[in-house]
Amino acid sequence: MQKLDVAVLGATGAVGQRFIQLLENHPWFRVAEVIGSDRSAGRTYGEAVRWVLDGSPPDSILDLQVKPLDAPLTSPLVFSALPKEAAELREIELAAAGHVVCTNASAHRMADDVPLLLPEINSEHLSLIEVQRQQRGWTSGALVANSNCTIMPVVMALAPLLKFGVSKVMIVSAQAISGAGYPGIASLDILDNMIPYVGGEEEKVETEPLKMLGHFGGESIIPLDAVMSASCNRAPVIDGHLVNVSMELRDKPSLDAVIDAWNSFRGLDPVPSLPSAPKQPVIYMTQPDRPQPRRDRSAGNGMSTSVGRLRPDPLLGYKFVALSHNTIRGAAGCSILNAELMAVQGYLGSFQPNVSVPELTRS
Amino acid sequence: MQKLDVAVLGATGAVGQRFIQLLENHPWFRVAEVIGSDRSAGRTYGEAVRWVLDGSPPDSILDLQVKPLDAPLTSPLVFSALPKEAAELREIELAAAGHVVCTNASAHRMADDVPLLLPEINSEHLSLIEVQRQQRGWTSGALVANSNCTIMPVVMALAPLLKFGVSKVMIVSAQAISGAGYPGIASLDILDNMIPYVGGEEEKVETEPLKMLGHFGGESIIPLDAVMSASCNRAPVIDGHLVNVSMELRDKPSLDAVIDAWNSFRGLDPVPSLPSAPKQPVIYMTQPDRPQPRRDRSAGNGMSTSVGRLRPDPLLGYKFVALSHNTIRGAAGCSILNAELMAVQGYLGSFQPNVSVPELTRS
Amino acid sequence: MQKLDVAVLGATGAVGQRFIQLLENHPWFRVAEVIGSDRSAGRTYGEAVRWVLDGSPPDSILDLQVKPLDAPLTSPLVFSALPKEAAELREIELAAAGHVVCTNASAHRMADDVPLLLPEINSEHLSLIEVQRQQRGWTSGALVANSNCTIMPVVMALAPLLKFGVSKVMIVSAQAISGAGYPGIASLDILDNMIPYVGGEEEKVETEPLKMLGHFGGESIIPLDAVMSASCNRAPVIDGHLVNVSMELRDKPSLDAVIDAWNSFRGLDPVPSLPSAPKQPVIYMTQPDRPQPRRDRSAGNGMSTSVGRLRPDPLLGYKFVALSHNTIRGAAGCSILNAELMAVQGYLGSFQPNVSVPELTRS
Amino acid sequence: MQKLDVAVLGATGAVGQRFIQLLENHPWFRVAEVIGSDRSAGRTYGEAVRWVLDGSPPDSILDLQVKPLDAPLTSPLVFSALPKEAAELREIELAAAGHVVCTNASAHRMADDVPLLLPEINSEHLSLIEVQRQQRGWTSGALVANSNCTIMPVVMALAPLLKFGVSKVMIVSAQAISGAGYPGIASLDILDNMIPYVGGEEEKVETEPLKMLGHFGGESIIPLDAVMSASCNRAPVIDGHLVNVSMELRDKPSLDAVIDAWNSFRGLDPVPSLPSAPKQPVIYMTQPDRPQPRRDRSAGNGMSTSVGRLRPDPLLGYKFVALSHNTIRGAAGCSILNAELMAVQGYLGSFQPNVSVPELTRS
Repeated sequence: MQKLDVAVLGATGAVGQRFIQLLENHPWFRVAEVIGSDRSAGRTYGEAVRWVLDGSPPDSILDLQVKPLDAPLTSPLVFSALPKEAAELREIELAAAGHVVCTNASAHRMADDVPLLLPEINSEHLSLIEVQRQQRGWTSGALVANSNCTIMPVVMALAPLLKFGVSKVMIVSAQAISGAGYPGIASLDILDNMIPYVGGEEEKVETEPLKMLGHFGGESIIPLDAVMSASCNRAPVIDGHLVNVSMELRDKPSLDAVIDAWNSFRGLDPVPSLPSAPKQPVIYMTQPDRPQPRRDRSAGNGMSTSVGRLRPDPLLGYKFVALSHNTIRGAAGCSILNAELMAVQGYLGSFQPNVSVPELTRS
Repeated sequence: MQKLDVAVLGATGAVGQRFIQLLENHPWFRVAEVIGSDRSAGRTYGEAVRWVLDGSPPDSILDLQVKPLDAPLTSPLVFSALPKEAAELREIELAAAGHVVCTNASAHRMADDVPLLLPEINSEHLSLIEVQRQQRGWTSGALVANSNCTIMPVVMALAPLLKFGVSKVMIVSAQAISGAGYPGIASLDILDNMIPYVGGEEEKVETEPLKMLGHFGGESIIPLDAVMSASCNRAPVIDGHLVNVSMELRDKPSLDAVIDAWNSFRGLDPVPSLPSAPKQPVIYMTQPDRPQPRRDRSAGNGMSTSVGRLRPDPLLGYKFVALSHNTIRGAAGCSILNAELMAVQGYLGSFQPNVSVPELTRS
Repeated sequence: MQKLDVAVLGATGAVGQRFIQLLENHPWFRVAEVIGSDRSAGRTYGEAVRWVLDGSPPDSILDLQVKPLDAPLTSPLVFSALPKEAAELREIELAAAGHVVCTNASAHRMADDVPLLLPEINSEHLSLIEVQRQQRGWTSGALVANSNCTIMPVVMALAPLLKFGVSKVMIVSAQAISGAGYPGIASLDILDNMIPYVGGEEEKVETEPLKMLGHFGGESIIPLDAVMSASCNRAPVIDGHLVNVSMELRDKPSLDAVIDAWNSFRGLDPVPSLPSAPKQPVIYMTQPDRPQPRRDRSAGNGMSTSVGRLRPDPLLGYKFVALSHNTIRGAAGCSILNAELMAVQGYLGSFQPNVSVPELTRS
Repeated sequence: MQKLDVAVLGATGAVGQRFIQLLENHPWFRVAEVIGSDRSAGRTYGEAVRWVLDGSPPDSILDLQVKPLDAPLTSPLVFSALPKEAAELREIELAAAGHVVCTNASAHRMADDVPLLLPEINSEHLSLIEVQRQQRGWTSGALVANSNCTIMPVVMALAPLLKFGVSKVMIVSAQAISGAGYPGIASLDILDNMIPYVGGEEEKVETEPLKMLGHFGGESIIPLDAVMSASCNRAPVIDGHLVNVSMELRDKPSLDAVIDAWNSFRGLDPVPSLPSAPKQPVIYMTQPDRPQPRRDRSAGNGMSTSVGRLRPDPLLGYKFVALSHNTIRGAAGCSILNAELMAVQGYLGSFQPNVSVPELTRS
C-alpha cells in the first residue's frame, strides 16, 4: 500500500510536534509537507524546530523544508495545529481547494456544518460533510474539527452513559501545562502553585460537549439536552488533564451499571479497527486514588481515557474522576484518528487503506 | 503582663512545628512545655525535632526537654497537634485535669458538646463550654476543636453569605502536600502529578461545615440546613488549599452583593482585636486568575482567606474560588486564635490579657 | 527457544518493579518467582505490590504468589533488588546453592572476587567468576553486581576516553528522586528545593568507578589509577541522574577527538548484539542545553547515556555533562544486560539463547 | 529625617518588583519615580505591573505614574533593573546628569572604573568612584554595579577565606528560575527537569569574582590571582541559587579554621550597621543536608549566605555547598545595601542618614 501524503500546518509548535511524532511510522500516512510561521519558512524542519517533547524529532523529517502558511499544498490530507487566528481563514481556503482538513484549532468547531468528530462517540456526525460540501460548494475538500482537550475526558466518560439520561454535569479541571502550548505557562507562575483560570476554556467546556454528544438529524447536529458547568484550573503537571465530575443521570442506574457501561464501551465499527484506536477507549480503574495524570496519561498509548472513583454525589447523584492525555487523545492523536475514520469511510478521495474492518457502517 | 504558659502536644510533628513557630514572640502566650512521642521524649527539642518548615526552630525553644505523652503538665493552656488516635484519650484526660485544650486533631470535632470554633464566624459556639463542663463534670478544663484544613476556605467564604440562604454547596479541592504531615506524601507520588483522593477527607468536608456554620441553640449546635458535596485532590503545592466552589443561594443576591459581603466581613467583637486575627478575614481579589496558592497563602500572615472569580454557575447559581493557608489558618494559627478568644472571654482561669477590646460580647 | 525462569528478589520495591517491567516480553527470560518481604509473602503480586511506576503491573505477573525471602528457589537466574542489609547474606546463600545472582544491591560490589559488571566497558571482568567459584567453592552459582546508579553516567562517559589517560575527575550530581526508592524522598523535602546531600553516595562515586574502569589482571581487578571527587545532590526530577563532570586527560586530545570517541563507542562483541544493549551506548548531543533529565533519560529505551556540552575547563582541562536513566541503565536494566552477557558467555548452565552474535569473545 | 527620593528603572520587571518590595518601608529611601517600558509608560504602576512576586504590590506605589525610559528624573538615587541593552546607554546618561546609579544590570560591571560593590567584602572599592568621576568628568553622579546573582554565594563564601590563600575554585550551580526574569523559563522546560546551561553565565562566574575579591590599588582594582571554573545549571526552584564548590587554599587551614572564618565574618564598619545588612553575612549550617534553597534562602531576610558540608576534596583540598537568595542578596537587596553604604559614606550629596555607626571608615 502506498502511504497517503499529509501536510502538517503549524508543524513546529507544541501540538504540531505531537502530529510529527505520532505520524512517524504511521501505517497509512506519511508526512510530506510541514508548514510553519514566517520565521520558520525556508529553513529545514530540523533547523526551525525547537523540539519540546521528550527525545528528538524523527530523523525522517529533519530535512523537510518548512513551507510558509500561504504556500499551495500537494497533500490531499492536512492536519492543522494552527493558532485560532491563523486557522480561521487558511483552513477554509484549503478545504475549498480540495484538501481534507483535520483541525485541532478552535476556530470552526461550533460552525453548524463542521463535525466535531470523536470517532468512538459520534462517527455518524461525519455525514455532516455532505451538508458541508453542498452548502459551501466544496467537492473533495472537507473540514473536520476535534474538541478542546479539556472536554476529552468529559465526553469520553459521558458518551457510554447517554443511555441513562445525562442531564446535569459539573466539571472542575486540573489541566496540564502542555495544554497552553510552548512557551506557554511561565515556570514562575506554576511551580508550587495552581492557577484557577484558563482563558476562554470554561465557555468551551460548557458548550462543545453538547454538540459532540448530540445526534445527526439529517441536516445538522441536534445537541444533547443537558446543562454543563465548568471551572478550569492549571496544575504543575506536564501532560494529562484531570477532571472531577459530578452528574445527574435521569434513570438512576446502579454504580455497577455505570462501570459496566464504561468498560464495555467500544464505539461503532469500524472505529475499533482503526490504527490509532485504543483497545479500550474508557478504562475504569478500581484503585481508590486513580487515575493520576503522570501514571495514567499514557494508557492505550495516550488514547484511552481513564476513569475512577465513581461514588454517590449528595447533590447530583454521581461523581467520578476522569483523565485523558491532552496532547495525544485531546489533540493530535484525535485528529489522526478522525482522519483514519475518514479514510475507511471513503472521504480521502481514491485512497483506500489496507485494512479489513468487520463491517463498514457508512451507507 | 506575665505571659501564660502553654504546652504543645505533638510538638515535633509538622503541625506542632507550626505551633512552635507561630507562638514565638506571641504577646500573651509562652511555650513552656513540649510533648512528643516516645522516640523524642527525654531529648531536647533541638535534638528531637527534624524541622521541616523553612528556616530553623526558634532558639528559645531548642533546650526545652521533650516530655512523654503521659507526663503531667503544668501549663493551663494546651495546644494539641496529636494524630487522631493519640488525641482521642489524652485530650480528654487533660481537659478533665483542668487544662484548656485547643486541638487541631479530628478526634472530637463532631462530639455534640465540643465547639468547632472559628472565631470570626461562630464565636457564640464558645457557650457550648458551659454545657461541656456540666455534662462532663469539668471545672476549669475545656476542649475546643478547630476544623479540618480543607474546610477552612469553604466556611470562611460561606459564613458572610449565610444571610443570603446557603442551601447547596459543591466543593472540589486542590490540597497542598503539607496537609498530609511529614513525611506525608512521597515525592514519587506527587511530582508532575495530581492525586484525586485524600483519605477520609470528603466525609469531613461534607459534614463539619454544617456544624461550624450552625448556631448555638442553648444546649447544642443546630447545624446549618444545607447539602454539601466534596471531591478532594492532592496537588504538588507546598502550602495552601485551593477550592473550586459552586453554590446555591436562596435569595439570589447580585454578584456585587456577594463581594460586598465578603469584603466587609469582620466577625463579632472582640475577634477583630485579637492578636492573631487578620485585618480582613476574607479578601476578594479582582484579578481574573487569583487567588493562587503560592502567591496568596500568606495573605494576612496566613490568616486571611482569599476569594476570587465569583461568576454565575449554570447549575447552582454561583461559583467562585477560595484559598486558605492550610497549616496556619487551617491548623495551628486557628487554634491559637481560638485560645486568644477564650482568653479574653475569661475561659483561661485568672489569666487576663492586656488588651483593650471595643466590647466584650460574652454574656 | 524455551525461556529461562528467573526470580526477582525484592520484587515489590521500586527497583523490583523495574525488573518486572523490563522483563515483560523479554526474549530470553521469564519471571517465574517473585520474592518479597514478610508483609508481602503469601499474597499474590497483584495484591502485594503498590505499583509506583507509570501505568500498571503486567497482567502476566499479577497472580504469581510472592515467596518469602528465605524460600528455596527453582530459577537458575536470580535478579536482586534487595536493600543492602537483606542482600548481604541471602545473595551469598543463593549463589552457593547454585544460582547465578545478578544484583543491584551495594552489599558485595567492592568484594575482590565480585565483578562490578558493565557489559560495554568491562565484559572481560566476567572472567573473575572463575576466581570467585574457585575461592568460594561454588559450582554453577555466581554473584555479579552492577554499579551505583550515579556512577553510571560517569563510567559510561569515561570508558571511551581511557585511551587518552583519565587521571582526575570532579563530579557534581543532580540525582532523581527515584534513586531513593519508595516512599523515599518526602515531597515536603524536595518540591521547590534541592538537597545537597545523598547519604553514603559520595564515597561510592569516588571508588566504584576505579574498579569498573580497571582491568582484569588474571586473579583480580587492577583498578584505574585516577583520583575522583564527588558532590551529590538530590533534585526534584522523577528519573534521570545528571552529572557535571570536569576531568584531566593526560594526552590532551582535541574536543573533536573526545566526541568521536564517545559517538563511536560500542563495547566489545557480543555486547552490541544483546537484546537490552542500546544501539549507541553513548550519544553526544550537540544542542547547547542538552542532555536534560526529562527529555533524554529514555534515549535508547533508557539504556543509552547522553553526553553534551564538552568544553575546556580552566582547572582540569575538559568539562561536560552526562545523563543516564537511573532505574533503567543505572539499576534493573543494567542487571538484565549483565545476565544477557552471562547467558551468551555460557554462565547460565545449559541455557543457550537463540542469538547469532558475530563472535564470542570468551576463551 | 526626610527620606531620600529614589527612582527605579525597569520597575515593572521581576527584579524591579523586588526593588519596589524591599524599598517599601525603607528607613532612608522612598520610591518617588518608577520607570518602565514604552508599553507601561503613562499608566499607573498598579495598572502596568503584572506582579509576579508573592502577594500584591504595596499600596503606596500603585498610583505612581510609570515614566518612559528617557524621561528626566528628579530623584538623586536611581536603582536600575534594566535589561543589559537598555542599561548600556541610559545608566551612563543618568550618572552624567548627576544621579547616583546603583545597577543590577551586567552592562558595566567589568568596566575598569565601575565598582563591583559588595559592602561586606569590598567596601574599599567605593574609592574607585573618585577615579570614575575624574575620568568621566562627573560631579555628583556615579555608577556602582552589583554582581551576577550566581556569583553571590561564591564570593560571600570565599571572601572570609582570602587570608588562607584562595587559588583554585571549581563551581557547579543549581540556579533558581527567578534568575531568568519573567516570563523567563517556560514551565515545559523545567518541570521534572534540569537544564545544564545558562546562557552567558559561566563566563561571568569565572571572571567577576576575581574583580570583586580584588583590592583597590589607588587607581584601579587589582583582581584576585586565582583560577575559577564554572558549570551552570537551572533547577526547578523558585528562588535561591545553590553552588557546589571545590577549592584550593594555599595555607591548608583546618576545617574548623575555615568554619570559624565564615561564622565570624562581619565586614568592615559601618557595613554591619546598615539597615539592610544581615546580622550574620555568612552562616555555617552544621546539619548534613543543608543549606537547601527553599528552607534557607530567606536567612537574614534573604541577605545572609548559608554555607554547609565543608569537607575534604580529594582533588582541590576542600569542598562545600553555599546558597544565596538570588533576587534579594543576589540582585535588588544588594543594590540597596550598596546605596546605603554610599549614603553613610557621603556619596549621596547632602543626604545624611540618621544612623549612628560605630566608626566611619572613609577617610
